[in-house]
Amino acid sequence: MSHAVIGVDLGGTNLRTALLTTDGDILQRHKEATIVSDGWEKIVFRIAQNVERLREAAVARGLDIRVVGVGAPGVIQMNTGVVVKSPNFPDWNKLPLQDELKRTLRLPVFIENDANAAALGEHWRGAGNGISSMIFVTLGTGVGGGIVLNNKIWHGADGMAGEIGHITMIPDGRPCSCGNTGCLEMYASARGIVQSYWEKASGSVPEEFFKTMTSEKIYQSAHAGDATARDVIKDMGHMLGIALAGLINTLNPEMIVLGGRVKDAWQLFIDATREEVMRRAFLAPAQRAHIVPSLLGDDAGMTGAAAAALQRLDE
Amino acid sequence: MSHAVIGVDLGGTNLRTALLTTDGDILQRHKEATIVSDGWEKIVFRIAQNVERLREAAVARGLDIRVVGVGAPGVIQMNTGVVVKSPNFPDWNKLPLQDELKRTLRLPVFIENDANAAALGEHWRGAGNGISSMIFVTLGTGVGGGIVLNNKIWHGADGMAGEIGHITMIPDGRPCSCGNTGCLEMYASARGIVQSYWEKASGSVPEEFFKTMTSEKIYQSAHAGDATARDVIKDMGHMLGIALAGLINTLNPEMIVLGGRVKDAWQLFIDATREEVMRRAFLAPAQRAHIVPSLLGDDAGMTGAAAAALQRLDE
Repeated sequence: MSHAVIGVDLGGTNLRTALLTTDGDILQRHKEATIVSDGWEKIVFRIAQNVERLREAAVARGLDIRVVGVGAPGVIQMNTGVVVKSPNFPDWNKLPLQDELKRTLRLPVFIENDANAAALGEHWRGAGNGISSMIFVTLGTGVGGGIVLNNKIWHGADGMAGEIGHITMIPDGRPCSCGNTGCLEMYASARGIVQSYWEKASGSVPEEFFKTMTSEKIYQSAHAGDATARDVIKDMGHMLGIALAGLINTLNPEMIVLGGRVKDAWQLFIDATREEVMRRAFLAPAQRAHIVPSLLGDDAGMTGAAAAALQRLDE
Repeated sequence: MSHAVIGVDLGGTNLRTALLTTDGDILQRHKEATIVSDGWEKIVFRIAQNVERLREAAVARGLDIRVVGVGAPGVIQMNTGVVVKSPNFPDWNKLPLQDELKRTLRLPVFIENDANAAALGEHWRGAGNGISSMIFVTLGTGVGGGIVLNNKIWHGADGMAGEIGHITMIPDGRPCSCGNTGCLEMYASARGIVQSYWEKASGSVPEEFFKTMTSEKIYQSAHAGDATARDVIKDMGHMLGIALAGLINTLNPEMIVLGGRVKDAWQLFIDATREEVMRRAFLAPAQRAHIVPSLLGDDAGMTGAAAAALQRLDE
């Protein structure tokens, strides 16, 4: 019997599950809404249910499931697969997600942080394919990251490495929900961009406008020629470049992969980002670190959760 | 016959050589001045001469030299042991140091960057003994660094990882010799401290005073109660803490080891540094990363060069 693997991407909005070959080809996908208010027991039950369905599909294809990988938001205790806490699931408090799923599924299960899973997905089958060291930065509602060194996620001593969004950029800058001030996330996330637009345009734009303001609308305005929107996105690009230059001088990676929604404004910020990197990082590392957009989109998390599980099964 | 190893620390001021056991105990040391103006051939000859002398001493002790490790300043091509360029040795231009020494000594030789060697020395036999991940920061004339992950130096794609001194702290800050502005080195090095003192005290201090000003004198003044000197060193501590918080959020290491001369002002800056780390990094990683002074002093480079050579011989 040939082997297959199941990857789960548990987000605050969607629960995605995929059946993959052990080479990372997706054979079948399932997506449903995550209903956070249902509580952890129902969510764990639904994950198991989706996995079971894909296991049946695998058997019908003559495939045997080797392992299940789950990417989940929050702080994960790597050796136990306990979700210590998760910003998206307020009732998850030291939830033994790995053990719960193992008991129900009678399969090996490994839990990985969602940003790390997306990083590993891009490394395995996306922009970073064939690259041994890369930094993945996801620019969405927040700014997350995952660091791949020697083809593996660098987890750090507490599984909390890669929190690139919370590097201080402006010591006395905007207050961040993490308790710090001036975090990269406060300038380079979708929320940060809306705030920057507000700060720059306020007075010249009716208050009403901001009640429904989103970063997407700002990108659209910028693409349509709005100078304030263009400046705001360019400023974001500069800030991102300063942060990346520091990471490049620290880790000298082969590649930087940028994912998340802010990526939709790629042409409007990437020149500013690259300019800061070339100006601020040492020449060889700056030239080495290709800055590229992520390729897998919504498949990155499932793919990387599967990759992480396969790696850890082999260890 | 038992084995031993020779470690060399080639600095712009001193050339240090040590005979060590394969456990890192130093059996014998030699130190002489580095005469940069002699040119690379004479310096390479002197390194070989010192190694030969210690090899004879080893033989007299019944010890056989397994490998020679050399820590050298500058950009090192890791796979070839070529010194691409070195700020301390202007005539070193793609110098094949490893091959030159191997040919002369007929022994395995490995070259490591000097800050990485010091990091590995502290990891093997100093403050980081028994720790698997640590960041070493040397606060001297400049600010250097070495990153130990899974008990090994993380070199990066071009051997240039660990350039912690050139992380941007103040985007439009002081111009740095690396071409960037606002590098950590411009605020946390001995030179940065003298400049900060100048900026803060200028007007209240006679110009003459600064002609012979050193960071050591500022530490002495601070210890003696000079408020300006105390503020300057505290400011340095804050800046260092902001940088360390970013590194802790990025890499979640077990330990941060601080070496170099600025360390002499430890009590005057460490509270400010720790305060920034606790305020700006996530709680678990901030609590995890013990910030400690280096222990090996001038022995760190030789010890770490030996450790690096032993590691690479085993690979």
